[in-house]
Amino acid sequence: MKFYEDGEALTDPQGFFCAGVHCDVKGARDGKLDLGIIYSKKPCNAAGVFTTNDVQAAPVRYSKILVADGESTFHAILANSGNANACTGQQGENDNLKMVSEVARQLNIEKNEVLVCSTGRIGIPLPISRLTAGIRDASEDIVDECEGARAFQKAILTSDTCTKSCSAKIKTSLGEVTIGGVVKGAGMIEPNMATMLAFITTDIGAKNMALKKVLSDAVEHSFNRITIDGDMSTNDTVLILANGASGCELSKESKSVQKSFAEAVNAICSCLARKCVTDGEKVTKFVKVKIKGAKDDTSAMKVARCISNSLLVKSSWYGSDPNWGRIVDAAGYAKVGLSFEELSIFYNECPVLKNGKPLVENKSKWKEIVSAKEFSIILELNMGNAVGEVWSNDLSEEYVNFNKSE
Amino acid sequence: MKFYEDGEALTDPQGFFCAGVHCDVKGARDGKLDLGIIYSKKPCNAAGVFTTNDVQAAPVRYSKILVADGESTFHAILANSGNANACTGQQGENDNLKMVSEVARQLNIEKNEVLVCSTGRIGIPLPISRLTAGIRDASEDIVDECEGARAFQKAILTSDTCTKSCSAKIKTSLGEVTIGGVVKGAGMIEPNMATMLAFITTDIGAKNMALKKVLSDAVEHSFNRITIDGDMSTNDTVLILANGASGCELSKESKSVQKSFAEAVNAICSCLARKCVTDGEKVTKFVKVKIKGAKDDTSAMKVARCISNSLLVKSSWYGSDPNWGRIVDAAGYAKVGLSFEELSIFYNECPVLKNGKPLVENKSKWKEIVSAKEFSIILELNMGNAVGEVWSNDLSEEYVNFNKSE
Repeated sequence: MKFYEDGEALTDPQGFFCAGVHCDVKGARDGKLDLGIIYSKKPCNAAGVFTTNDVQAAPVRYSKILVADGESTFHAILANSGNANACTGQQGENDNLKMVSEVARQLNIEKNEVLVCSTGRIGIPLPISRLTAGIRDASEDIVDECEGARAFQKAILTSDTCTKSCSAKIKTSLGEVTIGGVVKGAGMIEPNMATMLAFITTDIGAKNMALKKVLSDAVEHSFNRITIDGDMSTNDTVLILANGASGCELSKESKSVQKSFAEAVNAICSCLARKCVTDGEKVTKFVKVKIKGAKDDTSAMKVARCISNSLLVKSSWYGSDPNWGRIVDAAGYAKVGLSFEELSIFYNECPVLKNGKPLVENKSKWKEIVSAKEFSIILELNMGNAVGEVWSNDLSEEYVNFNKSE
Repeated sequence: MKFYEDGEALTDPQGFFCAGVHCDVKGARDGKLDLGIIYSKKPCNAAGVFTTNDVQAAPVRYSKILVADGESTFHAILANSGNANACTGQQGENDNLKMVSEVARQLNIEKNEVLVCSTGRIGIPLPISRLTAGIRDASEDIVDECEGARAFQKAILTSDTCTKSCSAKIKTSLGEVTIGGVVKGAGMIEPNMATMLAFITTDIGAKNMALKKVLSDAVEHSFNRITIDGDMSTNDTVLILANGASGCELSKESKSVQKSFAEAVNAICSCLARKCVTDGEKVTKFVKVKIKGAKDDTSAMKVARCISNSLLVKSSWYGSDPNWGRIVDAAGYAKVGLSFEELSIFYNECPVLKNGKPLVENKSKWKEIVSAKEFSIILELNMGNAVGEVWSNDLSEEYVNFNKSE
């Protein structure tokens, strides 16, 4: 597999076109790109993973039903930032359909061949005429050059500070297949899913159900393991489109090619998830919380999540304070039956606690590690063989200041 | 019932003595009172409620076993701040026993008549010789005047900004019974239990099991419903001592007196819990989150806790932003099966959302309400008849700054 850590990933696979325009969704007249389209002339198979929040935005409810059908194919994804079209009632559903109709009319495709994602503030009706005007502009702009992909990447951002993309190429029996992905964060993030939107394009051919399996596995080990603020959004969505333009069909390839396709999607999701955490709102540190020796996967993830979401732990990371006591406290309230006397902790490779005994001689080394912009915390529970991992970050004063009003 | 919102509550009931001294637990030489004793000449029945964290401090493990015995009686509680004696292994257990022995020796009582509570930083051994010296000083100081109670109240504080106490008097067949309580917070607070320590004294006579029932009910509806930062501590403890000095025996009183005793303990726990939230670390607002129309109690509390612990919701409270979208989002990820179209929300009495429709004409009123230092948020789920309530507060930049290192 060849892997590229950024770039104009969405149009790297053959046959994909993108656009991104400013249609002033927020009424801020700031020129920010806020509406984008991904388009493929060839029909695409697709799969999606969506927020499991009880409250789901109109575009989530709409797109979820469409991709659930194993036979459907698609030509386009419409995405806008600045307004989530969530908690907007019947009007939100109507507005969503108006956008779908406008995309279908402009691109000369069927309405049920369009998927939609929105992100931004909850509970405010869309300025629908500005959005339909934006769809007309974007449809005219659609290009398969990198500038289209670049504009799309910008159009989906909200509080993100940078675009986040990556791509991979794998060898198949018929030559090369390319997979590209982009993601936006950056608040209300504890996917399962978080308003995180991620889009993946590929020129392999694949059935919807096969794509769904590959995508779900990848999401489970990437986006579903990150947390910025523990707040799961109403709009989280990951979509993959496969247009077959490479001429290569997943089902006709050898097991080993199928495996390397799954690995590439995995690598893309992991890379995007990591970028998402690193670009979390007002974040200064990226921290991997790894649990080992748990009874089972569920309890490993419970402990990892309690640590990753603890305000006290996150505050201490912000302050570069090697405060293992707060980590132990958070692990304890996961209530998986752990015993402090069995617990060992490491900062990166450096032992902090060995079977409940602090190794204070390493103290200056601890401080050095947690002062870095990136480090790992490893907890060995000594209860079994299961492992779990969550990617988290620190909580800064700036986060609170940033989110105290919208 | 007569109720007093503050005062030197612990020595209000007959026969209780208190002391509080500086023994320099933290080695800061700042003169802060950091060790206290509550003492009753008459033996006391007792009950306790303790943290359910998997990791429990030495004093919790010790005291929990002692009060579990339905027959035991006690003469003293020792409490220290500045060091939690948690995650300190065998040495922690030994140090705890040394303190117990010193109290017993000084007050001429049995070792198993002493309960212990500690609060402060986790994972550091106690400076035991300073603590035993403090116990000698405190034992000499013990007085039943208000100055003893006042000193004790101060000695248990950590990041609290003020002492927190209240008392109640109820009429019985034999005259008056008094109940007094104190509490300390102020971080790592989501009891179930949080390092929250609360002490209640009363001059009624009562069996341990009867006290346990009254205390557990009261804690369930007070301390177990508050959250400051969602972090449950290793040391949370609520203890009640009943010395019978009033001559009145709970079991011999009428049902109506028994009820008013339970109500008084309830009122004391509620008052202390509320004070604890209001004095949370760097808090500027007190917010009651009330859920109505839930399927059952568990799901009502789940929704209330998701809202109360959401960083985005807490940040918006800090900024006086009436951001109902974040409330809906947090309610949705409690995953109790709620439907947005059935949801109504009120800020105090003012409707915000009626069956999923925002009443934007009230917008200026919303802003006015959430700008106050105290308000309620009421969610009507329309799924059943169960209710739930959590008392919470905002998250400030100062909280993060305060907790970024110890």
